[in-house]
Amino acid sequence: MTTTTPDTANPLVAATAAGHHRILTGDRPTGPLHLGHYFGTLRNRVELQSRGLELMIVIPDYQVITDRDRADRLSEHVENLVLDYLAAGVDPERATIFTHSAVPALNQLMLPFLSLVSVAELSRNPTVKDEITHSRQAAVSGLMFTYPVHQAADILFCKADLVPVGQDQLPHLEVTRTVARRFNDRYAPLFPEPQALLSRAPLLLGTDAGKMSKSRGNAIALGADEDETARLLRGAVTDPDRHITYDPENRPGVSNLLLLTALCQDRDPHTVAEEIGNGGAALLKRTTTEAVNEYFRPLRARRAELAADRTVLREVLHAGNARANAIADRTLVEVRTAMGTF
Amino acid sequence: MTTTTPDTANPLVAATAAGHHRILTGDRPTGPLHLGHYFGTLRNRVELQSRGLELMIVIPDYQVITDRDRADRLSEHVENLVLDYLAAGVDPERATIFTHSAVPALNQLMLPFLSLVSVAELSRNPTVKDEITHSRQAAVSGLMFTYPVHQAADILFCKADLVPVGQDQLPHLEVTRTVARRFNDRYAPLFPEPQALLSRAPLLLGTDAGKMSKSRGNAIALGADEDETARLLRGAVTDPDRHITYDPENRPGVSNLLLLTALCQDRDPHTVAEEIGNGGAALLKRTTTEAVNEYFRPLRARRAELAADRTVLREVLHAGNARANAIADRTLVEVRTAMGTF
Repeated sequence: MTTTTPDTANPLVAATAAGHHRILTGDRPTGPLHLGHYFGTLRNRVELQSRGLELMIVIPDYQVITDRDRADRLSEHVENLVLDYLAAGVDPERATIFTHSAVPALNQLMLPFLSLVSVAELSRNPTVKDEITHSRQAAVSGLMFTYPVHQAADILFCKADLVPVGQDQLPHLEVTRTVARRFNDRYAPLFPEPQALLSRAPLLLGTDAGKMSKSRGNAIALGADEDETARLLRGAVTDPDRHITYDPENRPGVSNLLLLTALCQDRDPHTVAEEIGNGGAALLKRTTTEAVNEYFRPLRARRAELAADRTVLREVLHAGNARANAIADRTLVEVRTAMGTF
Repeated sequence: MTTTTPDTANPLVAATAAGHHRILTGDRPTGPLHLGHYFGTLRNRVELQSRGLELMIVIPDYQVITDRDRADRLSEHVENLVLDYLAAGVDPERATIFTHSAVPALNQLMLPFLSLVSVAELSRNPTVKDEITHSRQAAVSGLMFTYPVHQAADILFCKADLVPVGQDQLPHLEVTRTVARRFNDRYAPLFPEPQALLSRAPLLLGTDAGKMSKSRGNAIALGADEDETARLLRGAVTDPDRHITYDPENRPGVSNLLLLTALCQDRDPHTVAEEIGNGGAALLKRTTTEAVNEYFRPLRARRAELAADRTVLREVLHAGNARANAIADRTLVEVRTAMGTF
């Protein structure tokens, strides 16, 4: 399988990869991945894979129900995630792509792990804290409240030692580290204390210069075709100043297009701006569209090829689930032996 | 397998059994069962079994770690529970005896179920409420906090429709009923809303006239031999009034011995008291000892026989775990189908 790994390495990824073996990462199955996901995390995963690290990719299908009543079109979303992963260069022979709901032994680990953290500690989760402070305790489900412990089970069941996270997820990872430490102290030294791999990726905005999100309609999906990409970028928010400069604070729309172009061409956004000079927003948008369409052409071709036979996607998921189950079963036996249960 | 079912039926059990099919019950594996357990619940279970109801007996080995740091001697305690069950007449061909930790699919049900209850609802659990009110939030583990949801998984995984509980456990059962109702409303009508079978059994006290508990050293174990029984009853707290009367409020020690005798002989404690009359505590204790030893003689003989080959106990547990896994796997598939996960 060919990959779309960029030629130049992310130095942070390179430095952090050394000495680590297994990475746990994943995406909520709420819709197709977009360019923000790609440059934010997906590209780095493929790069880490190319450096020999083993990727474990969890699709947390249960967690989707923490914040919506129905898991609408869940199966379709899950399959589309697999499609995006493979198109982006995740190698299913080396990576393990699995869903939460298919790995009972992983989920069972929640029980011993729940015994290792207090309600006070769980209440410190920033999201939960916020809801409870605002007297919306009834809005916090038991699943949301215990989410960091479920995440600990995701990470520890496969003894992942490196977890790519955003700054806002550091408190969650701290719960995992606490669980690992306490289990090791109390029962047996089974688990590594996983390290955070903090993303250094610049934040891509949506075409409205707000946070990129499928639900806001401002995102370019990884699987969008060239015409759709052109259409979305033509509608992007810019500003009336024809002289193009990279100034994220004062010119977020223009700067975001420059950043996207730069990411696709592996260049500096200032250089891109200089080249466009007084060409105005129209030239900028054409430049960005070409850059995106060129960069993603191989990925999209591969994606279309894979999408033609969805059996393959289901097979990849099936194999990933089987592998995750084998790992989880083994870990569960170790945990039960260490704890003295049968 | 012979049973020690008493000849006369508990009318409550008889009435409630009608129309129900499967009972979920269980005991924490913290030590041997004693006479309080026997007359409080175990005898009723055997009676329900003799009426054709299917017994599911969970040994909640995970829950032991909610309130103690180490699960000391857990395997031994679990085996001894199986021994007590079989000795008391639980038929392993018809009942399913299993441990929490051996049934991953049951434990996985915690996840969808956790999404159906709020933190506010979980905080209403009387035990948790008490701890949190007293600012001991750090003492409430995540496992203790989510215990009623785990119990919902115990009851619903096998679609039990009848659950024997004490008055204090009614709020827990209400969580199970809420989970069942919400799941049925939201996804598909999979679960019965289980009914409580409130125990009508009179409360047996310990030999010190306090709550009977192994840790207080005031309990007569089901497996105690006749000499030990005699010794423990000789040391029982009574009072100086030689005229024996049944007056639980004012003469708890004496009345408790009368109650125990009455339970063993299937008589009224007042009748037993009249027979002893002015015989004093010594005659009362001899009478009680004889009654207990006579009633439990067949059970104890059977227990000794079973204890001689613990392989049988492990086999019963193994078969029960296999059966529970088959049921849980089936329910999990139904749940995942209803929720639209793969």
